[in-house]
Amino acid sequence: MQSLPPILDMIVLLLFFMLIFSILARYEYFSCTKYFYLSFIHQNFKTIQESFVSLFVLLTTSNYPDVMMPSYHKSRFYALFFIVYLSLELYFLMNLLLAVVYDSFSNLEKSKVKALFFHKHEGCMHAFRLLVTQEVKPSSLNVKHFIGMMEFFQPNRTRREYYLMFKSLNTSKSGTLSNEEFFRVYDVARLKWKLKSASAEIWSSDFPQPFRGAFKGLHRFATWKYFDYFIYAVIAGNFLWILIETISISSSSVIMEKYNFASSWISISFVCTYCVEAVIKMLGRGPKDYFTSGWDVFDFLVTAVSVVGVFGEIFEESFYYVIVLRPFRLLRLFKVKRRYRDVLGTLFLLFSKLISLSICIINVYYFFAIIGMELFLNTELRNCCKNTSVESYYRVSDTGDTGYYYLNNFENIFVSGVTLFELTVVNNWYIIMEGYAHVFSEWVRVYFMLFYIVMMVVMNIVVAFVLESFMFRINYRRQMQLDTIDDDGVYKEEVVLSENEMHMVNVLSCPLTGDFIASSEAGSYVFKGESQRSREDFSLRMYRDEVEEWGKQLRVARQDTINS
Amino acid sequence: MQSLPPILDMIVLLLFFMLIFSILARYEYFSCTKYFYLSFIHQNFKTIQESFVSLFVLLTTSNYPDVMMPSYHKSRFYALFFIVYLSLELYFLMNLLLAVVYDSFSNLEKSKVKALFFHKHEGCMHAFRLLVTQEVKPSSLNVKHFIGMMEFFQPNRTRREYYLMFKSLNTSKSGTLSNEEFFRVYDVARLKWKLKSASAEIWSSDFPQPFRGAFKGLHRFATWKYFDYFIYAVIAGNFLWILIETISISSSSVIMEKYNFASSWISISFVCTYCVEAVIKMLGRGPKDYFTSGWDVFDFLVTAVSVVGVFGEIFEESFYYVIVLRPFRLLRLFKVKRRYRDVLGTLFLLFSKLISLSICIINVYYFFAIIGMELFLNTELRNCCKNTSVESYYRVSDTGDTGYYYLNNFENIFVSGVTLFELTVVNNWYIIMEGYAHVFSEWVRVYFMLFYIVMMVVMNIVVAFVLESFMFRINYRRQMQLDTIDDDGVYKEEVVLSENEMHMVNVLSCPLTGDFIASSEAGSYVFKGESQRSREDFSLRMYRDEVEEWGKQLRVARQDTINS
Ligand code: NA
Ligand code: NA
Repeated sequence: MQSLPPILDMIVLLLFFMLIFSILARYEYFSCTKYFYLSFIHQNFKTIQESFVSLFVLLTTSNYPDVMMPSYHKSRFYALFFIVYLSLELYFLMNLLLAVVYDSFSNLEKSKVKALFFHKHEGCMHAFRLLVTQEVKPSSLNVKHFIGMMEFFQPNRTRREYYLMFKSLNTSKSGTLSNEEFFRVYDVARLKWKLKSASAEIWSSDFPQPFRGAFKGLHRFATWKYFDYFIYAVIAGNFLWILIETISISSSSVIMEKYNFASSWISISFVCTYCVEAVIKMLGRGPKDYFTSGWDVFDFLVTAVSVVGVFGEIFEESFYYVIVLRPFRLLRLFKVKRRYRDVLGTLFLLFSKLISLSICIINVYYFFAIIGMELFLNTELRNCCKNTSVESYYRVSDTGDTGYYYLNNFENIFVSGVTLFELTVVNNWYIIMEGYAHVFSEWVRVYFMLFYIVMMVVMNIVVAFVLESFMFRINYRRQMQLDTIDDDGVYKEEVVLSENEMHMVNVLSCPLTGDFIASSEAGSYVFKGESQRSREDFSLRMYRDEVEEWGKQLRVARQDTINS
Repeated sequence: MQSLPPILDMIVLLLFFMLIFSILARYEYFSCTKYFYLSFIHQNFKTIQESFVSLFVLLTTSNYPDVMMPSYHKSRFYALFFIVYLSLELYFLMNLLLAVVYDSFSNLEKSKVKALFFHKHEGCMHAFRLLVTQEVKPSSLNVKHFIGMMEFFQPNRTRREYYLMFKSLNTSKSGTLSNEEFFRVYDVARLKWKLKSASAEIWSSDFPQPFRGAFKGLHRFATWKYFDYFIYAVIAGNFLWILIETISISSSSVIMEKYNFASSWISISFVCTYCVEAVIKMLGRGPKDYFTSGWDVFDFLVTAVSVVGVFGEIFEESFYYVIVLRPFRLLRLFKVKRRYRDVLGTLFLLFSKLISLSICIINVYYFFAIIGMELFLNTELRNCCKNTSVESYYRVSDTGDTGYYYLNNFENIFVSGVTLFELTVVNNWYIIMEGYAHVFSEWVRVYFMLFYIVMMVVMNIVVAFVLESFMFRINYRRQMQLDTIDDDGVYKEEVVLSENEMHMVNVLSCPLTGDFIASSEAGSYVFKGESQRSREDFSLRMYRDEVEEWGKQLRVARQDTINS
């Protein structure tokens, strides 16, 4: 909300310059009529209102260069007016608007992380203070009280899991948790624990022989790098094939309807290769590993779609429309380059986080669609604008030469949506505006201009959002020196339990104690805890210098409270 | 240069998706012709080459919604294809391209600052080591050697200035410079020194009475805040007046050529007020103070232009054209809001730093203009495109209804420039492309598309540049908690010299020594040093946390060198 005033400031500035240039256009027109071209009237700048509308539309570039051509025809120097205007408004001020939006957006992200950090810290402090009041040693927390709290906080965990959390928090190995150690509880509470047996690297290692051997070979093959290279080569070949096929169909355009896709055995063999690859990976690495890796799920879906497409081609009668899905298998090419993986990663991230933005866009669309339907529902635009510059766009005649712009109306909510999308894209939107302004009243321009200004801000937010997400990914990768952010997507902890500890956590009647941690016995049970990192986790790692600074601030504040 | 591969990656991705969608459009067309609309041919997607060109133009939105209308007329669902395409290519991938450009641009800025920091440090280390070899105490630098070096480094300074530099560097007051202290030599060397007399706050304080009293009153009036408020009110009134005047002339359009601007005494009185303001400020605060403040110079220029404008109105015969300059006095409104001062500040900054970017743009324009003139010099575009969709734009007839697009040609370097600017703005650029493609050959599309791709990258650099500069300003302001960055634009040092020190620096035969600094006598001569902060200084202050980190790295590296 506090980012609204700067955005409004920028819009006011945009409109202010538009007004100055409208006045300038008027004077230029005066001086022209008087001295240079007495008989000539610049057709777009007759009154100041028209100047303003023309320059408003020019901000969206929609009437460029048409709006310039009559003046340009008279003197080539008039181009200067338009070049200066566009350089100033479009290439300078519009970018400042984007800068304002982007700035407040990226600060919002950071302040959200900061607020969360302080919030969590506050919660931890509170919980810790409550828990240690019953302790003998009042500055640290023992196992019993910790587990008591966790049973309340996460009731559906086992005694062993609580103990594992405690042990992984207790990095000082003192047997009790200090305030600082306790703070990581939010991270540790999210971990999923698994017993790691000594040799259980492959999912199929429990299988009976001879299967174990075979699956082991398959595993080695599925994770072999040349296997991947081979698949990449197949994808590239597939791409070329689709291209050649499409071009050859295009050029022999006479017989194209006779072309039999089903006979394209090459396509089918490509799809078969993908199927075999999917099966090898699934069996070699195990279905669980396969279906939890985002890239493999993507592969699987694309392959499945391709199979449906091929069957559609063979049984032409029923599934013909799936032919449209064929080019999607090319999306597998995305895997090849690291940067393209970033692109798709950002896209997925946007889909999951775009919800609030989508709701905003849908609200704006809905609001304007309702108003549009209320105002323009039964307006007839066919042949509406005789003797205006947009006449041809609305012409309906039997002899061809039909402009279809009358279709851009508000007859129902979906058509209104498409019309508003056209206004969002902004190109030639003034034709729609002119049509309604001509049929209805000059004042409907307010509706269209207002929609443009609102969508301009919203689209700037979209740009800022995409910019921020993508730059976060590449900066994170750079700062952590990773190959891809996905390699860092999992938070891992490893805890080793001794025989005594295993006995304690499995037998309910056993009293809980932290003494085993302090005595640091040799353990034989290795537990692995894993959880997916959220955007907040990434942010906290990314801004770790600043997070350290916040931590210092908190410690100082705490000291001040104690001293006062 | 290392930012080129990521940019190319993104362009490849853009073109790749364009190709996928071209293929999709082809298939969609197939399925349509076969099942839904046997008789209907999508007019823009007949061959894959046409699909590709249409979708390339659609990336620039120039043919939207026209390219959609025929399909949209047949079924409303085709809108989906275009909405998905534009969302993906225009609103997602194009922004990723911007992100890549912006990211490499802002990293470039930072690495430039870092390189400069290390470079300066290296130079200092070197100089310091050379100078201290002749010293008795080999870890610190005495006055004599310091001045010896400075006489070489900046020969046109006085002995007193060298001593003032030395004293302001010697913050430890030890009489000799340590390595750390010496490092600030680059900042201090730029300072301009001035003796500050006890009461000399106002420039007119040396004037004889009664003038001194009068000028003192004038000074107080010129710096009185209500005086500024009054001027703001006058500017606002002036703005309204120009608006009303222009609208009233517009509406009474019959007699507009008879309208006598010279009789507009209100305009003249506004200009007079500005002149009086300028004179009061100039005399009250002194011409030097007035003409070194950027905002006042701006005011002065706008006022001067206004005066010329008014004289032009009175002596109508000679200066009539300056009427165009009238609205420029409205630019004074810029002073009112802090954010608008940022905007103008960024604009000035851009003008001074845009040179390398302008050279780049001019080179691209020149290169393409030369090729364009070579290829298309005598191409006749009048009535060129009969029976195509762009026919009307090139029609030349005596009965009105003339399209002026034949003017967008390459007849000389300036007209080529305007034509290329139209291609840069991108709206309706395809009409120019179609014209030449029709007259010349299909292959000229390569020229136009290549120009678009190059300019797309260049314009993204412009956006990144504007974004970076503006955001630097607002972030600097926020971090330093300033009202405007201009308040922080001057680096100031103050040094007090005692009688003995003054004697030493003024008498050449006196031996130079740092003992006076160490003994810290009471001084009576106050010297003020000032210099303008450069962008590098601002950056070093902005990234001070990181600069500290670099300093640490250097110290560690030095320690390692000593140890090894
Ligand atoms: Na446009
Ligand atoms: Na456009």
